Amino acid sequence: MLATNDGLKFVGGTLDGRFVDLCAVDTKLPATLKQTLAEPDGLAAAAAALATGMNKGPFVTGALSAPICDPGKLFCIGLNYRDHAIETGSPIPSEPVVFSKFASAIIGPEATIVLPKVSVEVDYEAELVVVIGKAGKHIPVEKAFQHVAGYMPGNDVSARDWQKGRPGGQWLLGKTPDTFAPTGPWMTTADEIGDPHSIRVQLRLNGATMQDSTTKELIFGIDHLIAHLSKIVKLQPGDLIFTGTPPGVGAARKPPVFMKDGDVVEVEIEGLGILRNTVAAE
Amino acid sequence: MLATNDGLKFVGGTLDGRFVDLCAVDTKLPATLKQTLAEPDGLAAAAAALATGMNKGPFVTGALSAPICDPGKLFCIGLNYRDHAIETGSPIPSEPVVFSKFASAIIGPEATIVLPKVSVEVDYEAELVVVIGKAGKHIPVEKAFQHVAGYMPGNDVSARDWQKGRPGGQWLLGKTPDTFAPTGPWMTTADEIGDPHSIRVQLRLNGATMQDSTTKELIFGIDHLIAHLSKIVKLQPGDLIFTGTPPGVGAARKPPVFMKDGDVVEVEIEGLGILRNTVAAE
Repeated sequence: MLATNDGLKFVGGTLDGRFVDLCAVDTKLPATLKQTLAEPDGLAAAAAALATGMNKGPFVTGALSAPICDPGKLFCIGLNYRDHAIETGSPIPSEPVVFSKFASAIIGPEATIVLPKVSVEVDYEAELVVVIGKAGKHIPVEKAFQHVAGYMPGNDVSARDWQKGRPGGQWLLGKTPDTFAPTGPWMTTADEIGDPHSIRVQLRLNGATMQDSTTKELIFGIDHLIAHLSKIVKLQPGDLIFTGTPPGVGAARKPPVFMKDGDVVEVEIEGLGILRNTVAAE
Repeated sequence: MLATNDGLKFVGGTLDGRFVDLCAVDTKLPATLKQTLAEPDGLAAAAAALATGMNKGPFVTGALSAPICDPGKLFCIGLNYRDHAIETGSPIPSEPVVFSKFASAIIGPEATIVLPKVSVEVDYEAELVVVIGKAGKHIPVEKAFQHVAGYMPGNDVSARDWQKGRPGGQWLLGKTPDTFAPTGPWMTTADEIGDPHSIRVQLRLNGATMQDSTTKELIFGIDHLIAHLSKIVKLQPGDLIFTGTPPGVGAARKPPVFMKDGDVVEVEIEGLGILRNTVAAE
């Protein structure tokens, strides 16, 4: 697993929970995970540095930040779990529903999700986030996984009263308030997990399980999403794809459940760790 | 006027059409327009460097690039001219319709708009683009213009067959293909123009006038847009707001007119210069 220390150091995680300062082990490594992905053999060099450092360090302390704080593009996919589409009363889409957040929405693990003054309906959405590792345009489905560097948990925080029911029907303002894209705690490289289309996705709000599904339920798989998006734009290292959320969002509950000051929300994805954030009023 | 040379030099324009290398005049100036906007007195320092350099140089030659190639946020406003809303058959919106493009869509003057293989309906949209100069959240309408650094022409290029009629109704993929956000040729600072709500906006396709209106027709003025957006996100120096397009877009014509390989499209905004781009098939 590769991560970013809150001193914005590029670090690698060890099995006993310590983090190695990768750039201290290999001074030729770029300073960030995103820059490392842009190097032809960057991931391999980072893995080698982690292997060297995991026994002897140097280790760093302190909290972690978002693994990639400045993606060039942050895509989100809507209605991509069959049962979530049904719970929102939406038809099963015939192609991916694509929207975006600005990179300014990104926060890391343990950071605070700020409830905007102008919203009273801030919801959570547990999501598997794909980190692009290799640039490409018009990527065929069968080669798409070659463009994936790794995966991490994400929370597609959503102000429902800004996402829906507004003129023009665009979701952007409901999706992109500052702090609305928690990611982390680290990126797990693709080789460290098995089939990404068969892992459990859970979300807990103040300890209560609100979402519990598996990526088997994805309507459009990761490879199809990459092929689809790369018809339109050239994907670049560090681009992120939030792949959609399973059932159990607050807005679809009866009565609805929205996040409030003092809440704690956790996204746990099998093999990828737990992304924990606190919630506070603006 | 402040611009970026294709060698990515930060330059200032003189009345006789030459461009001064501002960082050579004042070595304390940051290397880019965006970084200069982030400095407390950056614009004033750039203006002083331009005044010093305009008679004696050093001058730079070569084409211009996009004044800001890497905005943190690129907002677009939809249906913001009364008569354009009518021509598209849409109701007059009761609040701004906000969507986005990725910064990866930005190109500069004279650069090529690439028609994606997957679209047969690529349209033009002449727009006044606002460049944010000062950070702010919850900016009151009456203070909004204090946050504007300047203005430039922009073209909100749009693949209509990806913007509309797709599941979920999100405009992103139709708006953000690479090269779909031409801007420039330069940024005119706010003090160099009069009332930005009373300037002519024109678009010519292969020399024929297709759009010809004025920012008097804006439904939501620049100050209201800034106040609205800053309720949701903290605006930052270098953020861009494409303020919407007047009537005359290709999709609303009978028969429709879409751009094709070899076309030349020009956006001319009174006092801000002419943004000229060529069009080529992918």
